[in-house]
Amino acid sequence: MTLSLLCVSGIAVAQQTESVETEAKSAQQEADAWKAIDARPTPQWWRDAKFGIFIHWGPYSVPAFSEVGRYSEWYWMDLANPKRRSHQLVKQFHDRVYGERFTYPDFVPMFTCELFDADQWAKSFEESGAKYVVLTSKHHDGYCLWPSEEADLSWGRPWNSTNTGPGRDLVGELTQAVRKTDVKMGLYYSIYEWFNPLYTTDVDLFVTKHLIPQFKDMVNQYKPAVIFTDGEWDHPAKTWRTSEMLTWLFNDSPCKDEVVINDRWGKGDRHKHGGYYTTEYGAGLPNAENAWEENRGMAHSFGYSRTERFEDYNSSEALVLMLIDIVSRGGNFLLDIGPTADGRIPPLMEERLAEIGDWLDVNGEAIYGTTTHSTTCQWTAGIEEELGKGNYRVKYDVNKLLKTPDEGKARKEAVFTRKGDAFYAICAVFPNGQLTLKNITASPNAVVSMLGHDSDLTWKQVGDHVVIDMPTINPSKMPCEFAWTFKISSVE
Amino acid sequence: MTLSLLCVSGIAVAQQTESVETEAKSAQQEADAWKAIDARPTPQWWRDAKFGIFIHWGPYSVPAFSEVGRYSEWYWMDLANPKRRSHQLVKQFHDRVYGERFTYPDFVPMFTCELFDADQWAKSFEESGAKYVVLTSKHHDGYCLWPSEEADLSWGRPWNSTNTGPGRDLVGELTQAVRKTDVKMGLYYSIYEWFNPLYTTDVDLFVTKHLIPQFKDMVNQYKPAVIFTDGEWDHPAKTWRTSEMLTWLFNDSPCKDEVVINDRWGKGDRHKHGGYYTTEYGAGLPNAENAWEENRGMAHSFGYSRTERFEDYNSSEALVLMLIDIVSRGGNFLLDIGPTADGRIPPLMEERLAEIGDWLDVNGEAIYGTTTHSTTCQWTAGIEEELGKGNYRVKYDVNKLLKTPDEGKARKEAVFTRKGDAFYAICAVFPNGQLTLKNITASPNAVVSMLGHDSDLTWKQVGDHVVIDMPTINPSKMPCEFAWTFKISSVE
Amino acid sequence: MTLSLLCVSGIAVAQQTESVETEAKSAQQEADAWKAIDARPTPQWWRDAKFGIFIHWGPYSVPAFSEVGRYSEWYWMDLANPKRRSHQLVKQFHDRVYGERFTYPDFVPMFTCELFDADQWAKSFEESGAKYVVLTSKHHDGYCLWPSEEADLSWGRPWNSTNTGPGRDLVGELTQAVRKTDVKMGLYYSIYEWFNPLYTTDVDLFVTKHLIPQFKDMVNQYKPAVIFTDGEWDHPAKTWRTSEMLTWLFNDSPCKDEVVINDRWGKGDRHKHGGYYTTEYGAGLPNAENAWEENRGMAHSFGYSRTERFEDYNSSEALVLMLIDIVSRGGNFLLDIGPTADGRIPPLMEERLAEIGDWLDVNGEAIYGTTTHSTTCQWTAGIEEELGKGNYRVKYDVNKLLKTPDEGKARKEAVFTRKGDAFYAICAVFPNGQLTLKNITASPNAVVSMLGHDSDLTWKQVGDHVVIDMPTINPSKMPCEFAWTFKISSVE
Amino acid sequence: MTLSLLCVSGIAVAQQTESVETEAKSAQQEADAWKAIDARPTPQWWRDAKFGIFIHWGPYSVPAFSEVGRYSEWYWMDLANPKRRSHQLVKQFHDRVYGERFTYPDFVPMFTCELFDADQWAKSFEESGAKYVVLTSKHHDGYCLWPSEEADLSWGRPWNSTNTGPGRDLVGELTQAVRKTDVKMGLYYSIYEWFNPLYTTDVDLFVTKHLIPQFKDMVNQYKPAVIFTDGEWDHPAKTWRTSEMLTWLFNDSPCKDEVVINDRWGKGDRHKHGGYYTTEYGAGLPNAENAWEENRGMAHSFGYSRTERFEDYNSSEALVLMLIDIVSRGGNFLLDIGPTADGRIPPLMEERLAEIGDWLDVNGEAIYGTTTHSTTCQWTAGIEEELGKGNYRVKYDVNKLLKTPDEGKARKEAVFTRKGDAFYAICAVFPNGQLTLKNITASPNAVVSMLGHDSDLTWKQVGDHVVIDMPTINPSKMPCEFAWTFKISSVE
Repeated sequence: MTLSLLCVSGIAVAQQTESVETEAKSAQQEADAWKAIDARPTPQWWRDAKFGIFIHWGPYSVPAFSEVGRYSEWYWMDLANPKRRSHQLVKQFHDRVYGERFTYPDFVPMFTCELFDADQWAKSFEESGAKYVVLTSKHHDGYCLWPSEEADLSWGRPWNSTNTGPGRDLVGELTQAVRKTDVKMGLYYSIYEWFNPLYTTDVDLFVTKHLIPQFKDMVNQYKPAVIFTDGEWDHPAKTWRTSEMLTWLFNDSPCKDEVVINDRWGKGDRHKHGGYYTTEYGAGLPNAENAWEENRGMAHSFGYSRTERFEDYNSSEALVLMLIDIVSRGGNFLLDIGPTADGRIPPLMEERLAEIGDWLDVNGEAIYGTTTHSTTCQWTAGIEEELGKGNYRVKYDVNKLLKTPDEGKARKEAVFTRKGDAFYAICAVFPNGQLTLKNITASPNAVVSMLGHDSDLTWKQVGDHVVIDMPTINPSKMPCEFAWTFKISSVE
Repeated sequence: MTLSLLCVSGIAVAQQTESVETEAKSAQQEADAWKAIDARPTPQWWRDAKFGIFIHWGPYSVPAFSEVGRYSEWYWMDLANPKRRSHQLVKQFHDRVYGERFTYPDFVPMFTCELFDADQWAKSFEESGAKYVVLTSKHHDGYCLWPSEEADLSWGRPWNSTNTGPGRDLVGELTQAVRKTDVKMGLYYSIYEWFNPLYTTDVDLFVTKHLIPQFKDMVNQYKPAVIFTDGEWDHPAKTWRTSEMLTWLFNDSPCKDEVVINDRWGKGDRHKHGGYYTTEYGAGLPNAENAWEENRGMAHSFGYSRTERFEDYNSSEALVLMLIDIVSRGGNFLLDIGPTADGRIPPLMEERLAEIGDWLDVNGEAIYGTTTHSTTCQWTAGIEEELGKGNYRVKYDVNKLLKTPDEGKARKEAVFTRKGDAFYAICAVFPNGQLTLKNITASPNAVVSMLGHDSDLTWKQVGDHVVIDMPTINPSKMPCEFAWTFKISSVE
Repeated sequence: MTLSLLCVSGIAVAQQTESVETEAKSAQQEADAWKAIDARPTPQWWRDAKFGIFIHWGPYSVPAFSEVGRYSEWYWMDLANPKRRSHQLVKQFHDRVYGERFTYPDFVPMFTCELFDADQWAKSFEESGAKYVVLTSKHHDGYCLWPSEEADLSWGRPWNSTNTGPGRDLVGELTQAVRKTDVKMGLYYSIYEWFNPLYTTDVDLFVTKHLIPQFKDMVNQYKPAVIFTDGEWDHPAKTWRTSEMLTWLFNDSPCKDEVVINDRWGKGDRHKHGGYYTTEYGAGLPNAENAWEENRGMAHSFGYSRTERFEDYNSSEALVLMLIDIVSRGGNFLLDIGPTADGRIPPLMEERLAEIGDWLDVNGEAIYGTTTHSTTCQWTAGIEEELGKGNYRVKYDVNKLLKTPDEGKARKEAVFTRKGDAFYAICAVFPNGQLTLKNITASPNAVVSMLGHDSDLTWKQVGDHVVIDMPTINPSKMPCEFAWTFKISSVE
Repeated sequence: MTLSLLCVSGIAVAQQTESVETEAKSAQQEADAWKAIDARPTPQWWRDAKFGIFIHWGPYSVPAFSEVGRYSEWYWMDLANPKRRSHQLVKQFHDRVYGERFTYPDFVPMFTCELFDADQWAKSFEESGAKYVVLTSKHHDGYCLWPSEEADLSWGRPWNSTNTGPGRDLVGELTQAVRKTDVKMGLYYSIYEWFNPLYTTDVDLFVTKHLIPQFKDMVNQYKPAVIFTDGEWDHPAKTWRTSEMLTWLFNDSPCKDEVVINDRWGKGDRHKHGGYYTTEYGAGLPNAENAWEENRGMAHSFGYSRTERFEDYNSSEALVLMLIDIVSRGGNFLLDIGPTADGRIPPLMEERLAEIGDWLDVNGEAIYGTTTHSTTCQWTAGIEEELGKGNYRVKYDVNKLLKTPDEGKARKEAVFTRKGDAFYAICAVFPNGQLTLKNITASPNAVVSMLGHDSDLTWKQVGDHVVIDMPTINPSKMPCEFAWTFKISSVE
């Protein structure tokens, strides 16, 4: 395969033929396919977007229960599998509240969505400053939020939101509403299904009869701008035949130009193959070498969990700080909300979205469409955080990192972004008197300003430092809360 | 295979090996297996039993709805398949009463069985004179009345009566109760499952992973005296691997000596292979050449149907006449009842059972353990019924046949059974003055009597006829209703 | 008040005035009112009708549970009142099946009546030979089967079948259907309501605001031919103001000419005031001095009870014998059925109705429009039953009385009815050879026959006895079952 | 009655006697009773408390629906009464989601409270800085959150949270939990009940049989520190016999010393009789002449309403500003929360409570136990608000009043409170450079400080003004958000 084979937006691979002569040849084809897939550039719209909203919604939104710190969308598995950590707690709750002969599918009629208003949701998303949305078209339970024919394995077992529960095409309604705004519409899709008898009995059959036709149907019907797959860990990509699915997606699907994919297409392939790299309730990656995205909920669960109280939620401030920290390292932030079974975004989540939107109204210039600076941040004196040194497996505590480190530890005094010549330093702690940016050389005629503040700031170049005088602002009249952006119009 | 290979009660076939060399060899093995199966004699207990009770009970007992004349246990299929005759009627009812997003599995929590008392059922069965019972362990919907692990394809989809609905092992409870009486316990088992995804996707997988282990589990747990399979028509026996299952059943299962099977083991094999031959809402077979059994409900449905009113039910008289007509031809009668979702035998059905029992209390001697006479019956003058001539595909109207024929047509004046030397003539119309039995030669010292009547009857041999004087009995004091048995203690 | 004040069909009483001067005067008015009410003749249609059908149907048809021998329509009271005999059993069942926080009103949404077909019911009633029907418009629970405004004490508490449960005017539908036939439509109505807060707090308020307007509304809307009140025992008629209600009923209501009432209008007034006298699960009264009616269910309960099995039901024969015994003493028989919550008459009850109808088809001449003979029956030799001697408080066992007495006891060999000159003797045991009717003198040219039998019977007058020769009939060809009527066309 | 008759905490009135001779005498007694009641001083604990939490919770929390701007706890009335403004909207919703035959009482089984944790609630209340809690023991629907015997008008109609729904004594559980903290426990109690048949039929009967015994039972069982009555508007106090109830409350009840009452005891008596004066979603009263309390929800409804989105809620800032504005005028602020049917405080409400608590942690000194200053606030130049001039019927927009007035209008630059010599000025806008307090003379050695700020502030007396220099504080390190308190330790 040569580069000349690559279409503008598609990818080119040697065609698979029905009569594969040897296994070796097949393995080579698989490798070629991945090579082409991996070589496809992540569409620029996504790299510029920075901030997206993830939505976990399904029958699990009915019990909406989790051990605090765990995922409510895993309710069924927690209930069913005695080996899981939360099993006892979930089973005790389930038996007490619903009865021990109440099955997970019995929740479906209670997934009513009677207050669901797709336009209202879309408005919240738009006002949050997010640039894309990713909705669970199907989670590991296999329940589809759209009229998937494969979810009806036969006439007898309807297992989607049109035939059961709300009786509505939830994916369709939201897609239509979101597309009235500038926000892009994406879909989450679980590759495996915990209890699908085809899957539990014969994975190859499942792939052929269920996975591939269902995946294509989803793509053909909704033309998602993002496909966030998941549930790939049981089998290698070859078993899932995902290279085949993706070759189709990038060459023949109706969203082949726009669509962005993640890296969850086969056991062991995360951060190796597919599209952008994903981290989940983690710290993200150190830099922009690869496109990457951190996804997490506002509290501990993706699906709505009634056990999560106010104290379990990250504050709007913490979420804004995560956003700036992630963006400074070249990542995207996919922040999850868990709507309720009756179709509402819980007001606390609406508030978080609104407050992030307020911050982005002032500071969006330093976020959208930016790239990384050569160094991603500047540390105060003290013991540097492990995370700062690139160990992205440590617990990610954005408040410690950017605001209130333990004694003797350093914090990120400012995180940096770039847009062309312009340079942005975003500070989670308002600097005292002056902000000294090290190893930065501003253009002599550069203008320095604080986003949202009317007058330019005075500054001077001192060696390789830029020293900026902080404005005096009445605390009641700060342009925004949480973090403040200092812009140098041109750096060398 | 030689006869010497046959065990007393088991059967012997060449062992199947893992590495079958040729398909021809395999076909030969299949043929050998059937030859051995077919050669196994029907156990005598069943040939002597004559009368059994069939029970259709499951989630379909909740809606308990059918177009009159059709089967309520097919509700799910009628609802799901627009091509079925009753589809429109069933769907209209379903949508009106339960709503169009209410699925068949949603009936399971309403299959409560709160009034089910297995001992009470067993008492009704015993008092009906039935000698065996056949309960639907699983019908075509796939729902199991026992804790079948296969019904739980995984932790997540419980689909049996222990994990859902009543939370009880219904097969186990009834088996235990019936075995306290002299009645034998048998089980109905559907080979196919309409909407089992394994079945609808890959029948071989279904057979290997589901059918065979589930069948063996059922047999091992409950050791049924009868196995009444059904739902075999989609595929040949070879696909179902039923010869393999039966070889195991007759050689290695815990009920290998006692168990009786029917002829429903593969597409096109009814009245060819397996055990006794079955007819369903038919007229049975002309004679006892093969063991056979007619099965039918008291009205038109097997499962309970709330649309069946009194006028749709056969009277106790009609059911008794069916029994005698069937037994005279060497058949067994498997009469079905449809219990309710709350676990009761509807009182009208209890009444039918009790009234048949009352008749058998008096006349059982002429039924149980009998064989056929050389001719099965004697006709009055007139146009003989087609059925009498052996056309067993015509509609079976037992009242016309035995009691009230259309003008100019004959009726069976008496049906005959034998037990050793004894001869029994059973009349559905009480003879006027004398009963002349043609082509019968009684032993000179034979005693002639009417069952249930104290004094012997006077008789004489006139040529090859036996002429019996009818007793004069006050109509209020007849020993039984419906039909009367005249016994000749010894015929030549 | 003079007799001249009596209208043809109405009654006349001194008008009550607002300003009653003295209590004595008021008491006199009350007495006058009752005098007039009691003097009103029972309409002839009812005296001729003899056989009616009682229907108990309401939210209690949902649990449909009773201790065998007790009434299911008392479920709520049995559940609520620890002093009642069945309390423990009912509570145990309720808590097990519905849960201890499930209230009786929670049954209302389950009173669905989805299979209710008023025309089908009416057809069953007509074919049973019944001449009137009495439906519970409201039982002691207070739930109304018609859109009673009083049942909606205010906007907030709908407690009738139009606003809740089936959403249908059940009284209206059945009334309309029954009136298409020759059967008369009547209504049961409970005076008190167990748990109506007005009643439990202030009976006078209840009477004024609830009872009187609701009663009038029921009468005005449905113009019942029979009003069967009940629940009168807590208070005297004066408290209930029933004389006032009845004065209105007989003078001003739309059914004033046709309507028949019973004797349940005030504490202690049964068999004293009102219309016909009632007995309940009793033996009725000895003769026709007063109009009277025995009411009872087919088994032990009025409302449908799922705990009643076949063995708890009276046979069709027993019910026919009750009918003839009651009619011979000048009474009416009001036989109750308990439809199910889904709107069906249980098939066993349909069968009973049909078989009574079959008997009346042959023997109705000896029932409808008849009067009593000077003696109501003739006993065989032996110890006469207490009941025969007029002690109508003993347990009423119609089988012992008419068919199979204990050894040494007599039975009623025949019960008698009259229609003008014609005389009917009805025998529950077919006479042996001859029937000797004592103290009867037939007209010399009288014709003697057996109803349903073609040829006349031979007879002779022997002193004051009439001796009839029984016909010889093939037991298979009796004109009817259960009991046989011998008619003398003219007696002196 | 003389003052000497007054007990320390109780009140004394002439005893009512059974045989009231004249109506005039009775009217005098009523007047005397009110005189004594009105004369009782409001207990000091309540005057010092300033901030309480109101809780509306009941079956209306299940539909949890209101037209935005209206009350969800009026759902039943909105549904039932076609004359109400929200009727059409509520009925449309109800019929769509629950069906038109679903009644309000059918919600009770869904009022499950399975996640209710009284200690968790109590902790939230304590941390909010509230000093008392007022829970709806019973709202206008009549449903009781405690095992009220009167709510069970008889055995048959359980209408309280112990016998139905959650099966728990919610009042008892919360009372016990709250009393483990320093927060006082109070109860709301509706005098009338919309659809109580006693009430709708005969109010006097309702008062005697229901209201008085139920009220006393509530008091005797829970000894509430506050009784917030409501629903008094249909009838004058004389009809309700509330003077009699209160005379008992203050003289003989177990909480006679501690209990505080409001002014809702009879039609037309608000702001005239009883205890403290109430305003509801209003601006409160101009000064502390009478004890008063403003009550309102965080958004527009008292009961939980799912239609209220984030944008409908007042921010924590607005709620803090309401608190300071109300306290400066001598009032108390009773802020309502609406828990969910499953027993949770919605997280957004938890957040509001926590953030108010954070503010009070810093500024509580200027709130609790304070009294009013001679002037309640100081205005900036501009057009003064009507509200400032004492017109407390205008719409109360606290943001306009204290922070961002329309152009040309004045705002309250600071509101004042006092505690002995100390004087507090609370500013919702941080002063620029200096804060000039007019008409205040500080003691020469007075210390001026900002609550939460370490170092004292410099100040000077300029004529009758005190001029305070504002500290320079890093915006990231302000001691609190929303409003800042400047204290003068001693004023003359």
